[in-house]
Amino acid sequence: MNAPSAAVARTLANDRFLRALRRQPVDRTPVWMMRQAGRYLPEYRASRAKAGGFMELCRNAELCCEVTMQPIDRYGLDAAILFSDILTIPDAMGLGLSFGEGEGPRFAHPVRSAADVARIGVPDPEGELRYVMDAVRTIRGALGDRLPLIGFSGSPWTLATYMVEGSGSKEFAKIKAMAYGEPELLDRLLATLVESVSQYLLAQIAAGADAVMVFDTWGGVLPPAAYRRHSLDPMARIVARLKAQAPDTPVVLFTKNGGQHLAQMADTGCDALGVDWTTDLATARAAVGGRVALQGNLDPTVLFAAPERIRSAVAAVLESYGAGPGHVFNLGHGILQHTPPEHAGVMIEAVRELSPAYHR
Amino acid sequence: MNAPSAAVARTLANDRFLRALRRQPVDRTPVWMMRQAGRYLPEYRASRAKAGGFMELCRNAELCCEVTMQPIDRYGLDAAILFSDILTIPDAMGLGLSFGEGEGPRFAHPVRSAADVARIGVPDPEGELRYVMDAVRTIRGALGDRLPLIGFSGSPWTLATYMVEGSGSKEFAKIKAMAYGEPELLDRLLATLVESVSQYLLAQIAAGADAVMVFDTWGGVLPPAAYRRHSLDPMARIVARLKAQAPDTPVVLFTKNGGQHLAQMADTGCDALGVDWTTDLATARAAVGGRVALQGNLDPTVLFAAPERIRSAVAAVLESYGAGPGHVFNLGHGILQHTPPEHAGVMIEAVRELSPAYHR
Repeated sequence: MNAPSAAVARTLANDRFLRALRRQPVDRTPVWMMRQAGRYLPEYRASRAKAGGFMELCRNAELCCEVTMQPIDRYGLDAAILFSDILTIPDAMGLGLSFGEGEGPRFAHPVRSAADVARIGVPDPEGELRYVMDAVRTIRGALGDRLPLIGFSGSPWTLATYMVEGSGSKEFAKIKAMAYGEPELLDRLLATLVESVSQYLLAQIAAGADAVMVFDTWGGVLPPAAYRRHSLDPMARIVARLKAQAPDTPVVLFTKNGGQHLAQMADTGCDALGVDWTTDLATARAAVGGRVALQGNLDPTVLFAAPERIRSAVAAVLESYGAGPGHVFNLGHGILQHTPPEHAGVMIEAVRELSPAYHR
Repeated sequence: MNAPSAAVARTLANDRFLRALRRQPVDRTPVWMMRQAGRYLPEYRASRAKAGGFMELCRNAELCCEVTMQPIDRYGLDAAILFSDILTIPDAMGLGLSFGEGEGPRFAHPVRSAADVARIGVPDPEGELRYVMDAVRTIRGALGDRLPLIGFSGSPWTLATYMVEGSGSKEFAKIKAMAYGEPELLDRLLATLVESVSQYLLAQIAAGADAVMVFDTWGGVLPPAAYRRHSLDPMARIVARLKAQAPDTPVVLFTKNGGQHLAQMADTGCDALGVDWTTDLATARAAVGGRVALQGNLDPTVLFAAPERIRSAVAAVLESYGAGPGHVFNLGHGILQHTPPEHAGVMIEAVRELSPAYHR
């Protein structure tokens, strides 16, 4: 496996987001939104219709760039994030990803047996996954030196849940049967995913990503010991690899429902943690003891409330983090499909207006 | 509203469960399972088929008693729990509960407006809900003085989520729109539910329940401040009411995904807390500082693993709680539908064999 070349040093017109991740002083709290390029925006729905489907959109670098730029153009956010899916890696492994109408993702060839695990290889980021790197390069070109670009991947555990279950899940019975019944088999699957995610993120960095985020959507369904072994430890190995090969690129880890694990997540050596709305930022900040920046954490459903309620909820999040550097404002999870776009604008405007007081 | 007469003092042949809830010494850790009378048991499926449907089963005191006793007869558990549904109260409020085939619950008349909230009354536990009290009395008769009987209710917040959403939910957009946009309206709905749940549980105690448990399935989806206002505070008012009117009956509170709130839950004056598998019992015990007993917390999916893995997982839960009184062994949530019944037996047997060492 070739180490991609290190990230290009870039001077950005707006570097608030990167400075906040490094816990450096900023004039105001930077803001972006998870899933900011998405179905709540009419312009996104038009681009997706043009592409003909979700994975078709993900595979088209020009359209990926188009939808990535839409929320930037509309709201003037402080970071762009690559438009892609978390399941590109298992798809590139040949598991046969599809999205049924009105359903979640499905794999034609789920991974269940030792033979299934042995068969899986590490996808080449510039081979099967070249379409993602092409999207990164295209977006980088469109952004120029205006704004940072965030690359991302699903966490090994989260990818494994879909690969083993064969679809989304509520109870995670199959992957947990593997975790509890054949933990060594799951370790092997996760080792392949650690290597795959590491190469994938390093390639995104080489292609133009300024920071990377690992989305651990399902780590929070595990008991603490299993979380450490199957979710946190694989992420820690990825952080170590990234820090060795791209030391200047900030790494953000986000475990949904991971409020009880924040201190251990900070121990991985990552730069920042995503925090969902079920943990107060004051509690989170105390738990990590200033070792990492924090990103979050407005409940996305707040954006269904009236503008004045949104403003006061933004004020509460800013107050909960408190004064000083190291906060990136975000939702606590992806923006919801039926969010009125102008309500997202109210939130962003409130961050702009209310946050400078915390940076004097 | 009439206060039901206080609980009858009862001497039980097996009082391990009640002693553990009161943090009194026991010979071994008592064990029962949430949803122990349920679809994983073939004898339950036969009873339900005989009843013709789920709510028909809930409304038939003889059949409720039959299914309540099935896991007792099969496994020799340390407590029986009333067979019923958490949505009996909103059903009795006239919201039109139904269960679609293969779907969750649905309400024909969800509660959305101030007029909807004003229209709702407190159901009479010996009126519209008499079928539940009849079930309690019938089960009490069948149990005699052998074993304790647990009564239960959904928490006000959890009942409100179904009443406002009109069904189960993933994002809770409607109830959260009320919580964030019209919190005073939600307060009024919750006040009616506090009164309803209090009367309902007091009536269960009068009818023969030896302990009661409040299931807060959805408190964990709220930010901490909203959890305190809309989930914890209503439960605290119920605990105060129960402690005033039935001081000798232990009260158990259980918020799923509430690991971060355990200390505040213990402050309500309840006797015990249910703990799900995402928090170690050692952590939970430290958080509550010996003020309450703890009930839990094996991940129900462990029961899909091989018997030796189940045994070691039981050992880990016992070890996590450690020595001394105040532990009731349970799953961290309801037993899953496809659990092999003999695997539940392995778990129960392991608790019997391994737990005496923690009570010397």
